[in-house]
Amino acid sequence: MNSRKPYQLVSREWKNSDTVFEVNGTKIGQDLVMIAGPCAVENQEQISTITEFLAKLNVKFIRGGAYKPRTSPYSFQGLKTEGLKLLRDAADKHGLGVVSEVMSEDKIAELEEYTDILQVGTRNMQNYPLLRALGKSKHPVLLKRGMSSTIEEWLLAAEYIVSGGNERVILCERGIRTFENATRNTLDIAAIPLVKSLSHLPIILDPSQGTGIRDLVAPVSFAAIAAGADGLIIEVHNQPAEALSDGDQSLYLDQFKDMLPTLEKIAEIRNKQFDFQSELTLSH
Amino acid sequence: MNSRKPYQLVSREWKNSDTVFEVNGTKIGQDLVMIAGPCAVENQEQISTITEFLAKLNVKFIRGGAYKPRTSPYSFQGLKTEGLKLLRDAADKHGLGVVSEVMSEDKIAELEEYTDILQVGTRNMQNYPLLRALGKSKHPVLLKRGMSSTIEEWLLAAEYIVSGGNERVILCERGIRTFENATRNTLDIAAIPLVKSLSHLPIILDPSQGTGIRDLVAPVSFAAIAAGADGLIIEVHNQPAEALSDGDQSLYLDQFKDMLPTLEKIAEIRNKQFDFQSELTLSH
Amino acid sequence: MNSRKPYQLVSREWKNSDTVFEVNGTKIGQDLVMIAGPCAVENQEQISTITEFLAKLNVKFIRGGAYKPRTSPYSFQGLKTEGLKLLRDAADKHGLGVVSEVMSEDKIAELEEYTDILQVGTRNMQNYPLLRALGKSKHPVLLKRGMSSTIEEWLLAAEYIVSGGNERVILCERGIRTFENATRNTLDIAAIPLVKSLSHLPIILDPSQGTGIRDLVAPVSFAAIAAGADGLIIEVHNQPAEALSDGDQSLYLDQFKDMLPTLEKIAEIRNKQFDFQSELTLSH
Amino acid sequence: MNSRKPYQLVSREWKNSDTVFEVNGTKIGQDLVMIAGPCAVENQEQISTITEFLAKLNVKFIRGGAYKPRTSPYSFQGLKTEGLKLLRDAADKHGLGVVSEVMSEDKIAELEEYTDILQVGTRNMQNYPLLRALGKSKHPVLLKRGMSSTIEEWLLAAEYIVSGGNERVILCERGIRTFENATRNTLDIAAIPLVKSLSHLPIILDPSQGTGIRDLVAPVSFAAIAAGADGLIIEVHNQPAEALSDGDQSLYLDQFKDMLPTLEKIAEIRNKQFDFQSELTLSH
Repeated sequence: MNSRKPYQLVSREWKNSDTVFEVNGTKIGQDLVMIAGPCAVENQEQISTITEFLAKLNVKFIRGGAYKPRTSPYSFQGLKTEGLKLLRDAADKHGLGVVSEVMSEDKIAELEEYTDILQVGTRNMQNYPLLRALGKSKHPVLLKRGMSSTIEEWLLAAEYIVSGGNERVILCERGIRTFENATRNTLDIAAIPLVKSLSHLPIILDPSQGTGIRDLVAPVSFAAIAAGADGLIIEVHNQPAEALSDGDQSLYLDQFKDMLPTLEKIAEIRNKQFDFQSELTLSH
Repeated sequence: MNSRKPYQLVSREWKNSDTVFEVNGTKIGQDLVMIAGPCAVENQEQISTITEFLAKLNVKFIRGGAYKPRTSPYSFQGLKTEGLKLLRDAADKHGLGVVSEVMSEDKIAELEEYTDILQVGTRNMQNYPLLRALGKSKHPVLLKRGMSSTIEEWLLAAEYIVSGGNERVILCERGIRTFENATRNTLDIAAIPLVKSLSHLPIILDPSQGTGIRDLVAPVSFAAIAAGADGLIIEVHNQPAEALSDGDQSLYLDQFKDMLPTLEKIAEIRNKQFDFQSELTLSH
Repeated sequence: MNSRKPYQLVSREWKNSDTVFEVNGTKIGQDLVMIAGPCAVENQEQISTITEFLAKLNVKFIRGGAYKPRTSPYSFQGLKTEGLKLLRDAADKHGLGVVSEVMSEDKIAELEEYTDILQVGTRNMQNYPLLRALGKSKHPVLLKRGMSSTIEEWLLAAEYIVSGGNERVILCERGIRTFENATRNTLDIAAIPLVKSLSHLPIILDPSQGTGIRDLVAPVSFAAIAAGADGLIIEVHNQPAEALSDGDQSLYLDQFKDMLPTLEKIAEIRNKQFDFQSELTLSH
Repeated sequence: MNSRKPYQLVSREWKNSDTVFEVNGTKIGQDLVMIAGPCAVENQEQISTITEFLAKLNVKFIRGGAYKPRTSPYSFQGLKTEGLKLLRDAADKHGLGVVSEVMSEDKIAELEEYTDILQVGTRNMQNYPLLRALGKSKHPVLLKRGMSSTIEEWLLAAEYIVSGGNERVILCERGIRTFENATRNTLDIAAIPLVKSLSHLPIILDPSQGTGIRDLVAPVSFAAIAAGADGLIIEVHNQPAEALSDGDQSLYLDQFKDMLPTLEKIAEIRNKQFDFQSELTLSH
């Protein structure tokens, strides 16, 4: 056991080389991964439109919530199983991988059936029974940082999963709660290089939850890749103004498309490559 | 639905009079409730000693963790079912009620068997599947505030339980996470009168988690009752220096005993009465 | 020099007994001090009405801002010298002491002329040239906690003043900035007993700035005295709805009067006595 | 006056085009500005070594504290006038501009004599008498964000200066205070694009104060430029291990040099150019 740090298996001292694992053709931890899609799966047309759009851009993963943790019991709670089916069907048509959130141990089996990566949301980062159960899953886990969690607590949450036997954990910085309310959360950009020095696990960034403001998503995404992040998870929607949740932070399809070339160039400077290749790049 | 507040059933607008319900003889919401005991159930001798001590002081509720949410997977995780049995046996000998934490929907039935009040910890305040399941429980729920939850989010978490059919919710202020690290958390004392103006639910305070420092427990408890709290939940231990968790914030038995007369006097000034009566009071 | 704490002269290790000093007849640090008055001096009628009211209640100190630190350059900035004169004249008629804020070294001499206690506001807690200059003042200093200052930084700010030669410092907890915006600030109630254990200096609480909500002032004031505070500084106004600043957190005159008997009773339980005596007490 | 925002002159609504002004040959707001140097001026050899090093890299501005705001009265407080002279002499030998902090109105004239840009530190962001006096200065002002200031409060602080007549304000994001203490502060990366959308003033970033950790400075600097910042202010020291203040966050000279080519490449992608040109660039 490391004498100074409370976590062990996730530390650089335990394993010096970056953890890399392949999901849907992407070598996560080596290639930069791009995950995009709506906050919530709403209906077949929405999810088809978005998936087709992403597929054209060669994006490899679609995200979409089917079980939604909502602050109010009266808000839209997600399409549940129906939503997962819509997401899987649309993804399969275009060969995309699926990322969706699991809120409860009892739903892990169902989520495993329909997704490629299981997401643990910010509110459940310290739901230890859930983390322990995910330690037994065959699926990779995307572990969002708790909105008031220290980096140490976050790595200990990952340790729960890894010590259970599942080494395929992707950390996701999504902003922390501070006094500043001009943005939804305060993205902790320094957490990217700091976590990479402390742990061998891949770490990505969520600029949508992190800022809550559509127009900040592109510059903050550029910053994340420049800082050394292993990828991004971004909310995009074909009709943000009519989204059932988080419309204000969802990119228009064109906004998403337009930011890709710059992302690729910054990645190149940092000696990395995304798992997609934008039209611009392909036309070079 | 209230036009300005996102919660409804828990609001004063919905129900103006204080919610009062009886548990183990205490009219919670009317009498001030005192819940005391160790952070975790450790062994039979520990729990017997503490229960006997509390019973002598006429305290009506013992608390003790059997399933412990710990930041590290390598920390003591609680005695689980064995702990619940020890707690129930000791409490039954002296007629005390039992409060213990439930971390997962799957354990609700077991917790209901051994306890009188189900506690939801700070890390699970937004574990919505758990809250929904507790909405169907026959047991009262002690709902701790999330360490980075706003008062509005906390009341919405209570709304999840109440809208499910369980109206017996006790709110518990246990401190929020701030930049100040001289104390474990920063107790939000103003939340006591503010919540009482917004909601009809009873609200108590946890000075042990709230401060993390034994010597601050008494003055902060006095403050809570002066501010109008409906009770307290306090960590006491027969051997704090050897406690398996949270020893620094656990009161010595004598410290606990010594603070009771002052608490009763402050309660009296605020036209309230505790559910226990200290020796001092009885000897008047 | 204390080996573990970065401050020295303000510590309990340096001087074990409480610091007590007399201002306008009140032995601050021994008697509980009550300071009340408007956020800002607005005109002669306002300040006369409030002073007369306080004098009838035997309150010994009036507060009022003449130089106001305002977030916007376009907000009312105070009546400056004219305000100080109005305050001093009104106070002198009834034998009250005067507390007002000093924002700049250049104004110390003027403030000394018109006041009995110099207040350093939350924005200036780390204005070190100002603190150093106040170390040379003959006037006591009321040092508000910075809105994002740790207790250690606060005591070090006091150390600047005391090490300059002025030992008459009153600390004032006025709430810290957190993510919670239901109240203007989050009052750190545990800071009261914690500071009293670390330092020999008196510490009072400002429930008006601390909460920003008029109806929370009374319960939070009760809490402060129960927790062991050495006094209170409270905003009261004859016409809160028309106040030029901070009207929402200013008490109506009657509200202020009504809370005094309860305050005195709680003080008595804590073996303390206020420097005023309410009519109710006098009529006993 | 803008109907929704409390600030006016600093807003994009008031003036749509970016504010650009020339200092020492750099068009701040158009060229990206690089300011580097030690936390504090310590002695002639130190400042000569660092200045010569920066000059060789074509860096145009040296920073160095002569009046240091220190949390403890017992810490090194800076060389004061002597430090300013050393800084000016060294800078003049190589044609560099000088940036240094002013803590008090009374020192503005002296600072103007020795520097090209007056820095307002985080503790003084709401020192309004100082801001008002700087509104009358002929020197540009580098206004650091208060460690617990919202973006709105920060822009209002700038409004104090601009409304006084000095339009040459550079905003500097330097991290805010949060619960996370793995880094010294939490850099608010989203503040860069957000402030640029709200205001026409240039905004730079301080990765040294922002992180407090030397090895995070380069990746966070890359992020800042990727996010659209107008420059950087970075602590470098010839002997960080022996620095009288902030050694842990000061770059070694070689570390500083090594990060420049990557910075320039990211700037280019964002269609910007630094005011220096590194050897690597020159050799192209």
